[in-house]
Amino acid sequence: MDIRLFSPYFLGSYGENNHEFEDIFLEFFRDHVYWRRSFHPEDLPPISILEKQSSHYLETMAKTKQELHKLSAALKQSVPFSNPRYIGHMASDVLLPGMLGQFITALYNPNNVTEEAAPVTVKMELEVGNNLAAMFGYNLDPNNGSVAWGHLTSGGTVANYQSLWMFRSVKYYPLAVKRCGELADIDFIDGKGRSLHYMSTWDLMNLSIDEVIQVRVNCLNQLKAMGDDKYDELIQLLREQRIEHQGHIDFFEQHKELKQPVVLVPATAHYSWVKAMKILGIGSKNLWHVPTDEKMRLDPEALRLLLLKAKSENRTVLAVIGVLGTTEFGTVDPISDIVTLREEMIRDESLNYYIHIDAAWGGYLSSVFRNEENNLRSHDEVKAGFEHFPSAKVYDAFAALKDTDSITVDPHKLGYMPYGSGAFIARNKNMCGFVVQEAAYVFDKKNRFVEPEPKLNQLGQYIMEGSKPGAAAAASYVAQNVLPLNAEQFGKLPASTIRTTEVFYHKISELSDKLKGKATLITPMEPDTNLICLAINPAGNTSTRVLNDFTRKVFEHIKIEKTTPLFNKEFIGSYTSIFRKNIDDSVAQSLCSKLGLDSGSFVTDIEKAEYQDNALFVLRHTLMNPWLSDDKNGETYLDMYLTYLEETILRLIEQ
Amino acid sequence: MDIRLFSPYFLGSYGENNHEFEDIFLEFFRDHVYWRRSFHPEDLPPISILEKQSSHYLETMAKTKQELHKLSAALKQSVPFSNPRYIGHMASDVLLPGMLGQFITALYNPNNVTEEAAPVTVKMELEVGNNLAAMFGYNLDPNNGSVAWGHLTSGGTVANYQSLWMFRSVKYYPLAVKRCGELADIDFIDGKGRSLHYMSTWDLMNLSIDEVIQVRVNCLNQLKAMGDDKYDELIQLLREQRIEHQGHIDFFEQHKELKQPVVLVPATAHYSWVKAMKILGIGSKNLWHVPTDEKMRLDPEALRLLLLKAKSENRTVLAVIGVLGTTEFGTVDPISDIVTLREEMIRDESLNYYIHIDAAWGGYLSSVFRNEENNLRSHDEVKAGFEHFPSAKVYDAFAALKDTDSITVDPHKLGYMPYGSGAFIARNKNMCGFVVQEAAYVFDKKNRFVEPEPKLNQLGQYIMEGSKPGAAAAASYVAQNVLPLNAEQFGKLPASTIRTTEVFYHKISELSDKLKGKATLITPMEPDTNLICLAINPAGNTSTRVLNDFTRKVFEHIKIEKTTPLFNKEFIGSYTSIFRKNIDDSVAQSLCSKLGLDSGSFVTDIEKAEYQDNALFVLRHTLMNPWLSDDKNGETYLDMYLTYLEETILRLIEQ
Repeated sequence: MDIRLFSPYFLGSYGENNHEFEDIFLEFFRDHVYWRRSFHPEDLPPISILEKQSSHYLETMAKTKQELHKLSAALKQSVPFSNPRYIGHMASDVLLPGMLGQFITALYNPNNVTEEAAPVTVKMELEVGNNLAAMFGYNLDPNNGSVAWGHLTSGGTVANYQSLWMFRSVKYYPLAVKRCGELADIDFIDGKGRSLHYMSTWDLMNLSIDEVIQVRVNCLNQLKAMGDDKYDELIQLLREQRIEHQGHIDFFEQHKELKQPVVLVPATAHYSWVKAMKILGIGSKNLWHVPTDEKMRLDPEALRLLLLKAKSENRTVLAVIGVLGTTEFGTVDPISDIVTLREEMIRDESLNYYIHIDAAWGGYLSSVFRNEENNLRSHDEVKAGFEHFPSAKVYDAFAALKDTDSITVDPHKLGYMPYGSGAFIARNKNMCGFVVQEAAYVFDKKNRFVEPEPKLNQLGQYIMEGSKPGAAAAASYVAQNVLPLNAEQFGKLPASTIRTTEVFYHKISELSDKLKGKATLITPMEPDTNLICLAINPAGNTSTRVLNDFTRKVFEHIKIEKTTPLFNKEFIGSYTSIFRKNIDDSVAQSLCSKLGLDSGSFVTDIEKAEYQDNALFVLRHTLMNPWLSDDKNGETYLDMYLTYLEETILRLIEQ
Repeated sequence: MDIRLFSPYFLGSYGENNHEFEDIFLEFFRDHVYWRRSFHPEDLPPISILEKQSSHYLETMAKTKQELHKLSAALKQSVPFSNPRYIGHMASDVLLPGMLGQFITALYNPNNVTEEAAPVTVKMELEVGNNLAAMFGYNLDPNNGSVAWGHLTSGGTVANYQSLWMFRSVKYYPLAVKRCGELADIDFIDGKGRSLHYMSTWDLMNLSIDEVIQVRVNCLNQLKAMGDDKYDELIQLLREQRIEHQGHIDFFEQHKELKQPVVLVPATAHYSWVKAMKILGIGSKNLWHVPTDEKMRLDPEALRLLLLKAKSENRTVLAVIGVLGTTEFGTVDPISDIVTLREEMIRDESLNYYIHIDAAWGGYLSSVFRNEENNLRSHDEVKAGFEHFPSAKVYDAFAALKDTDSITVDPHKLGYMPYGSGAFIARNKNMCGFVVQEAAYVFDKKNRFVEPEPKLNQLGQYIMEGSKPGAAAAASYVAQNVLPLNAEQFGKLPASTIRTTEVFYHKISELSDKLKGKATLITPMEPDTNLICLAINPAGNTSTRVLNDFTRKVFEHIKIEKTTPLFNKEFIGSYTSIFRKNIDDSVAQSLCSKLGLDSGSFVTDIEKAEYQDNALFVLRHTLMNPWLSDDKNGETYLDMYLTYLEETILRLIEQ
């Protein structure tokens, strides 16, 4: 792939597109200023020219500039994310169209909590949500079944919370309807015409999201048919039966047959999932970690066993979370197996779970799997652009996204957008109806009937946050219009970084050969995406602790620390740890054998502190900067990094 | 107050400071570009000049510009918040130093989740938190007791969630320690040397935050003294006893004597509190609404009765929320009474509750109450600048903030900052220790001991969100440095808008006199801050429904709607509703009598639809634009608005 393609996409690590940025920004800044003047142009400017000559004015402007000088000076200690020498965390240069879209919109400062405060950017936000939904394969055609919906959040963490918040709201709804029916002596029915009254708690707790939505539609229709007064009374009664109203304690008290729900995540899941369980009051012990296989992907067999365990304990599985690009290893869970397993579990065990995908990191890679008509490209088509990527498992994972219930994806990660920009995408927008929260002033008796279809322009009613910047929405909107989310356009960018990762993967193996007798270098697991780890063992060492100490010393050279000025660093990387407790015996065995470690030194519980450790310390590289493969300096940045790594390792060995 | 003072603070409704913005922005943009070049200046620019002449480059840039033209065109339908003719929601022009600080920092795109990704702006964020804490009167001197801590959130809604999340975490902690002690046969003690084992559940659930922190310090010290292995085992055991781990269900199952907790908010509280109860799994029915008095402030007597009710039901009061500037009416709850009542309740009822203040709107008004040494100004000193403000109650409320436990405040509201910028401020930073969540990669055996003092540079461990924009922190940081949060500097800005509100208040009464025989205009409650409502009744009408219909017609003229271009509007306002169910009989009676309404037409339950209504529809004005009192056009914008209102009312009456 020709990386010159990306020249107009970024400001550039050298600020190469500085004139373009300046020209465009100034044009639209002035446009904004004249817009300000066109609202009642007959009004005189409140700030007079004379006043601008006063000493107070001049002093304040001087103080403003002085403070900004101090800011600018301090900011020079920032991490140069835009530089190809930065290969640490999930950050890079941001897309120029997004950056400019954000800056220009921030001048207008719209508030996307509601269309009333953001007549333009709420629409853009919903459009961004639609584009992301389409990229994942969710349906947007109302003639074709349930329609997706998505919106931005301040980040992926909030989007993750939102999934469990919405899932809980939907999951426990049928029990509330059943109870309301019992209290009011009404026979509510589900989508198949079954009376809820005669359905078991287990069955009601194991309906799909679409089935629960149908329960709600039926219920609201039945209530509407009873006339205004009855409707008001019963809708209130129904609200009072819901878990949101009762809280966990009283709801479970009323439904004594209910056991605590469980949420299943792979062992590699982001720590925000633990936080989510705590915040939502479900409890972190009910977050079950599914073991991962040797590729650090969720093990579907282990998942099956945990699902059967949940069933045997009569516990509701609120959600199974699959990760599309783990934070630590970039690995991709077998989403298609999670989907298939659900079908099997529904059929064999009457066990149904909602599926949320944490694609905060890898979500935008879906663009590589879509053609310009937004159809899924075949495995062969996708593969043609790479050496290894995507493996059959990874391809199937992306292809199966359409069958999941909701997805977290972060524009401020692989969407190359500024912070903070996360997104939550739901397959069925009518999930919103379960969490709607109306502000006092929007209440209106005339619109008394609760409709299953949400009024999405009142965004604040359906999301966790309230006031929120329209500028973030405009950033993604403009970027997606310039670079639509398919393989021919935006997709070329992440595709190029995957290619770089493939090159890196091979070069590590070459380097290991070259250093034979001095050190062993391995990639602990084949990279599923553009995040790659590296374990380094000095020749002859068999102790995990010694390996860790050595690799830590290597890491010191590419680490951000307060003692060394950042700009003296040749490269900036990151690290992670592979915990023994999170991997199988066979995986641990295999890692030790590849590295030449005594597997007795890689342990869950440390007995011999100098020899053993409970985790493998590895270098972690996020390769999202497209210029990593730029060779204008005679060799690519990637090669320069590998040379630097080799020198560092040799120097440390000789010490 | 001379509004010319504010000339250098804003871009201006006419964009008067456009040259200053351009000059400053360009200077720092270029500074940023050259900074990019100074990291390894020996590297050649990855984007070559030749490439910039390619057709692909030129086409992409053209497409970028075209999309931005479309964006800019669309943005012209934005709401002109910066104009003094906008008096609707809580939005205005933003402070120039903040705006520039945000723009400049966004170029560097720091991520404030951790200092590693934002070496500069995490410090700024903590400093912004400190400044806000100091403005509220919280202590920052480690020699002077517990020290405050604050940080930014995406908005006030998340800050509100955070208060309950942290409060729950602290509140239930002593029970977990007690149980851990019982399981491990350890006698844990509280700060007064009492054995937790012999303390009752009620007593353990009614410790202050500082007392619980002491319980934690003691407990950690006792565990540390037991040696490494025992420590690891017991700290795990303790974690497993916490409500975060257990979830509500099992925790309450283990502590059968516990009843559901309650949270008390005034009837006027923002709807995010209902959302918070639902999200946290506590349940919205456990949110008790405290009735308000005729000034729409929380009624302390009603609060007392509800607290006694909670006690009589053996229920924990998790929090009492006071609102400092309600969203709908701008009213200020009697915070000092909430604080005093707590002392009384501790003394007489052994009932202790945490106090959180939702000062999303009014928080920045605290600056008016602080002198340049950050000491609280006396009531007389503050009063000197106004005609009515602040009433004794309002003064006491601001003075009592120092005795509360945490505060929500929104820089993007009365802090005149861009969206999205909220803040959470805690009186005692050691509250953080209860919610700490470490990412996998920061785990390190060497630092095994959990310390009570949080490592605040790892911000992401203590907050609800994860990745977050450092640019928002820099915006507030620069603004606070240019305009420190005291009466002599930043405070002059909100003070001037309060003065404008006082003028508005009198002019409404004059206008009502002038329209005698045609219409009655009243301010339903004296404004506590700079938000003022207006009820309008055509002369002779006694029906609430008719009044509402009439006021709605007036509102049509100042409403944002899709059918009329915004720029054809003379003024833009907002509305709210005073619900009959939220106010006392006597208050309803008094409102009806002032307006000439039959009090039988203002009802909780509507029987006669054409005559009655359950809410009073009123115009709502947020007066935060300092140029409202600018008179360069011969009269002030406020006067122009009142004239427009008069004409509109007369025209509608004559129809």
